[in-house]
Amino acid sequence: MHEPKPGLTTAAPFSDDDRDAVYDAIFTRRDVRSQFQQRPIAQDVLTRILTAAHHAPSVGFMQPWNFILVRNMGLRLRIKAAFEAANAEAEAKFEGESKALYSRLKLEGIRDAPLNICITCDRTRGGPVVLGRTHNRDTDLYSTACAVQNLWLAARAEGIGVGWVSIFRDADIRAILGLPDHVVPLAYLCVGYVDELYATPELEQKGWRKRIPLDELIFHDKWAVK
Amino acid sequence: MHEPKPGLTTAAPFSDDDRDAVYDAIFTRRDVRSQFQQRPIAQDVLTRILTAAHHAPSVGFMQPWNFILVRNMGLRLRIKAAFEAANAEAEAKFEGESKALYSRLKLEGIRDAPLNICITCDRTRGGPVVLGRTHNRDTDLYSTACAVQNLWLAARAEGIGVGWVSIFRDADIRAILGLPDHVVPLAYLCVGYVDELYATPELEQKGWRKRIPLDELIFHDKWAVK
Repeated sequence: MHEPKPGLTTAAPFSDDDRDAVYDAIFTRRDVRSQFQQRPIAQDVLTRILTAAHHAPSVGFMQPWNFILVRNMGLRLRIKAAFEAANAEAEAKFEGESKALYSRLKLEGIRDAPLNICITCDRTRGGPVVLGRTHNRDTDLYSTACAVQNLWLAARAEGIGVGWVSIFRDADIRAILGLPDHVVPLAYLCVGYVDELYATPELEQKGWRKRIPLDELIFHDKWAVK
Repeated sequence: MHEPKPGLTTAAPFSDDDRDAVYDAIFTRRDVRSQFQQRPIAQDVLTRILTAAHHAPSVGFMQPWNFILVRNMGLRLRIKAAFEAANAEAEAKFEGESKALYSRLKLEGIRDAPLNICITCDRTRGGPVVLGRTHNRDTDLYSTACAVQNLWLAARAEGIGVGWVSIFRDADIRAILGLPDHVVPLAYLCVGYVDELYATPELEQKGWRKRIPLDELIFHDKWAVK
């Protein structure tokens, strides 16, 4: 193998074992809502998963994210109440069997998990003109979602479960966390060690929806009606 | 270790080696615009990285993504021209030293990479009421961004470079790829084998912007001005 030039490093494929480890993280990552252990996450482990998030790609290298570590139980109970209010509205949108199944699903672990993390996107970071964001204003939000995914995969490798709670009225979560208007609460995560994970997605196991065959999602050169 | 119940699997932490492999993928992933090899990506490798994308988390398990594999050179030249037109507009937004540096950056590998992949988000998939999307209509876009990140990390493990091109007028890319109105072209990726990667982000190495210290991005319980 040749020596990379200064500032460069090898792009060689990983060994089979290392490659399989990356796929294992990707394929066994689950959206966790239950069975969180109370055992706290050690500071070095927490720093590792946050560092993973911080190494996500970001448009123009703007790094628009912040990480609000929510441990205070008073705050978490307010957030849980905000979830309950929104979830009642959500449940009312479903009908029949879907409604019955929806009402049985546990969709958050706000109080059960020892740590909650709100990952936000500061839309003003880096000033008004951001390289790469000139023609699509929402690319900073997409960067922040990539940070969520990095954290999620790192957490899986650490034996830590993560659940993304998205059922909130925007104004509630903003008020409780004191967010300024230019900051978007992109993901509210419940985080903690778990012993077990669903072998396939919980919503698949509970009959909510099936995985779409990959072939049906692939097009060649142009969109086509399949 | 106890035996998981049916439908469940262990959530045990990875071995140190496997955990480090996941972090290696995260920390050495780069946004690649140059030095793509013409060597094609074998079908089994391509299927693996697309399967990784398809195993991203998605709100309500809606799996809103499609993967348009763009290989046709005529189409790619049209997409490259669309990039050039938008990039001229983008460059005009910068001034002074930033403008000079911007003009020297290579921001796409549309023609150079042997494969382009447009990852889209179908906002109608799963019907009008999607579990978890009831209070934040954009969570399907965030799911799709997570799929991009999964593909990117899998590609890194395979020795494949990926570059995300975001400088297009929305109408241009829609027209060229034939996208219906309800489908968002979330990420346009240039994909191919590379020998070398920047050891740190290219925009950092070229003096565009520095990495923010992680500590400055962390808050406790509430947003605070730092």
